[in-house]
Amino acid sequence: MTEHIETLVEIITDFIRGKKIKELQDFAADINSADLADIMQELDNEQRVVLFRALPKDLAADAFSYFTPELTEELVSLLSDPELGVIVDELFLDDAADMVAELPADVVRRILKNASDDTRSGINQLLQYQEDSAGSIMTTEYIDLSADMTVEESFKHIREVGMDKETIYTCYVVDNKETLIGVVTVKTLLLSKYADKIGDIMSSANIISVSTNDDREHVAEIFQKYDFIALPVVDSENHLVGIVTVDDAMEVLEEENTEDFQKMAAMLPIDEPYLSTGVIELAKKRVLWLMVLMISATLSGYILTHYQSVFAAMPALIAAIPMLMDTGGNAGSQSSTLIIRGMAVGELKITDVLKVLFKELRVSLLVGGTLAVVNALYKYILSGDLLLSITLGLSLFATVIFAQTIGGMLPILAKSLKLDPALMASPIVTTIVDAGSLTFYFGIAKTVMNL
Amino acid sequence: MTEHIETLVEIITDFIRGKKIKELQDFAADINSADLADIMQELDNEQRVVLFRALPKDLAADAFSYFTPELTEELVSLLSDPELGVIVDELFLDDAADMVAELPADVVRRILKNASDDTRSGINQLLQYQEDSAGSIMTTEYIDLSADMTVEESFKHIREVGMDKETIYTCYVVDNKETLIGVVTVKTLLLSKYADKIGDIMSSANIISVSTNDDREHVAEIFQKYDFIALPVVDSENHLVGIVTVDDAMEVLEEENTEDFQKMAAMLPIDEPYLSTGVIELAKKRVLWLMVLMISATLSGYILTHYQSVFAAMPALIAAIPMLMDTGGNAGSQSSTLIIRGMAVGELKITDVLKVLFKELRVSLLVGGTLAVVNALYKYILSGDLLLSITLGLSLFATVIFAQTIGGMLPILAKSLKLDPALMASPIVTTIVDAGSLTFYFGIAKTVMNL
Repeated sequence: MTEHIETLVEIITDFIRGKKIKELQDFAADINSADLADIMQELDNEQRVVLFRALPKDLAADAFSYFTPELTEELVSLLSDPELGVIVDELFLDDAADMVAELPADVVRRILKNASDDTRSGINQLLQYQEDSAGSIMTTEYIDLSADMTVEESFKHIREVGMDKETIYTCYVVDNKETLIGVVTVKTLLLSKYADKIGDIMSSANIISVSTNDDREHVAEIFQKYDFIALPVVDSENHLVGIVTVDDAMEVLEEENTEDFQKMAAMLPIDEPYLSTGVIELAKKRVLWLMVLMISATLSGYILTHYQSVFAAMPALIAAIPMLMDTGGNAGSQSSTLIIRGMAVGELKITDVLKVLFKELRVSLLVGGTLAVVNALYKYILSGDLLLSITLGLSLFATVIFAQTIGGMLPILAKSLKLDPALMASPIVTTIVDAGSLTFYFGIAKTVMNL
Repeated sequence: MTEHIETLVEIITDFIRGKKIKELQDFAADINSADLADIMQELDNEQRVVLFRALPKDLAADAFSYFTPELTEELVSLLSDPELGVIVDELFLDDAADMVAELPADVVRRILKNASDDTRSGINQLLQYQEDSAGSIMTTEYIDLSADMTVEESFKHIREVGMDKETIYTCYVVDNKETLIGVVTVKTLLLSKYADKIGDIMSSANIISVSTNDDREHVAEIFQKYDFIALPVVDSENHLVGIVTVDDAMEVLEEENTEDFQKMAAMLPIDEPYLSTGVIELAKKRVLWLMVLMISATLSGYILTHYQSVFAAMPALIAAIPMLMDTGGNAGSQSSTLIIRGMAVGELKITDVLKVLFKELRVSLLVGGTLAVVNALYKYILSGDLLLSITLGLSLFATVIFAQTIGGMLPILAKSLKLDPALMASPIVTTIVDAGSLTFYFGIAKTVMNL
């Protein structure tokens, strides 16, 4: 709980204890809805209901959209049916649909029962879209205008219906078949004359839109590229069916980043926050890749066993095994991380493969060379064994070059095979590079030290 | 180049070749500015100038803000002084300041020379703020209103000055000392009566703002939490000095994520895209941590050397070393990644340390147990050696428990020491866990196998 929230909670509980409902109403009406959700979290159930009933209904609904599923469930159980109906109808449809998707069936039944027919059918429509599609993150509450309206008529229309729309700042122009034919911002409306026709001031060429089935990641990329605050979603016949707003795109971006972090650390994507995810669920998401990698690592085991005679003849070789394996893994992870991230943010494409290869080769010559010299000198100073030091330096040099080129190439290979590049991160790269580094090491040792 | 851009480039080059300037003007005026930047990238210099001169100046300036530094430099060299002056004055000040920060000194001098006095002083003011501060990403072009204005007067004001403001949808109410006293959205303005006073309809309590010196990461977090489209920036005396818009917050978010990915793969943050970063620069950013980790890994080498007698007595133990080290590293990375990410998105706090410890312990019992049983069975079927299989299973079990609790605790420890938790990722965790897994392994082997 931040200090800001703590102060608000104190003031509010004081009002509630003193039964100063009028003061509570005035005070709470000015609190941001996201903060209200944080405050609710800190109150007991009785206090929650008092605060909730003190809120203007639009603010109450807005706060609802920020609740955790647990808090929503709790509060739904405390509210009367009519109260619940008002909240659900006030919620933006996409938030209502998200809420319904996260709650237990009996709670959902109660919510839908108390919603108006329009809200219920709106929620059901949104729930039909595939998870992770543009349809699943859009809202159907937007402002539509027709081309023959004047600016004055448009403002009148916005005043009439605007209160319930998630954004009013970008308006969409449709014909009588709901086909999207233009976009006009409130900024343009404000800077135009009252008598101007929408058809004359709207942008109609090159309208950027997405289709309901497009991946939500694609939607987030469009927001990043074009700096929009809303984006129209159309069906296969270019009929406008909804809009995505920038706050939802930002959330998608953050979730996709989290998913990449998890995949790159050899986990299956975990949807819920860490503390709300069960132990068994967490274990399941982690054990699969660990098992695959554990079995793959036996290859490096075979290589060690194969060269047993080499380090039996020269036991001093053993000490460097962890250093070689770790450095190879780390060096390879650096390259794969840079390339995976570069592809995720759209800076790198499959066709850049040769540029990446050439760059990683040169970088690895520098990095590998530096590490090799430092390590060989260090070993020579400590042991005075020239051949051992040369063996170490050469092995490290070869390992880093191998690791960084493999690390740079694997994500691009994955992408060209239509796999997720994020899978080719540290864990897999390390497993592959381990086998390489051990082979180089004992091969070089045999040659240099004549074993 | 996407298909969309490819088509646009074809049409535009056709217009240019056919010298159809009127058609080019009409066509290009409807293209999105971010797309225009992509198109420019594909044209030769002569074509660039023709297209650029065909654009309305506000669109031309807008496209400029999406150029790469290389393209900006190229185009600046092609434009006349008066043309350049117009563009710089049309640019939003924060984009102009970003541009200036990225260009060589001689180009900057030419740009500033041709800017108006207002623009020049605005740019210089923005350049004073520390890198990565809220001040460095804000713009000073916002709409300010006073509390005694009516809604009608506010609309008149917006109409007069709105064209040059980065967003008009959130207006800021200041007193005669420029102190921020309220916020009012255009939505509220549109839904109010013309005669209403701003002072009566604005939100004035609990205004959420940031200070110029706040970290830009904090700014991005506020946008994520509150779903704003703009956020006011104030100085130490609560005077309004600028605003940050959501598109810039989204960019910060993406850059901060990239930085985390890089840190977590043992690299120093790399500011530029991969392909624009030089080989030496890339090598420098990578070699430091590799060197530190390489030297740290010698600890595991000492442990191996220390237990030499154990695996000399039982050479079959050697084969499992890579598997144990890799599994320990991977298991620890999973935990550290989950915790680092959880803290980065604000789901986990330092005070959750015991919850994390308890959860990681239970998860690791499950994960470690599963892997241990699978591995011991696998080894027993392959080798028929019961004691060796038990040794392996127990070592793996201990390693995973150690790895996941260490991996979960280190990022929290770092945060409580005011260090960046992202440093406690896979590479460091692996190095520490390696030493642990080898110690467990040989310790258990000595006991179980009586060596």
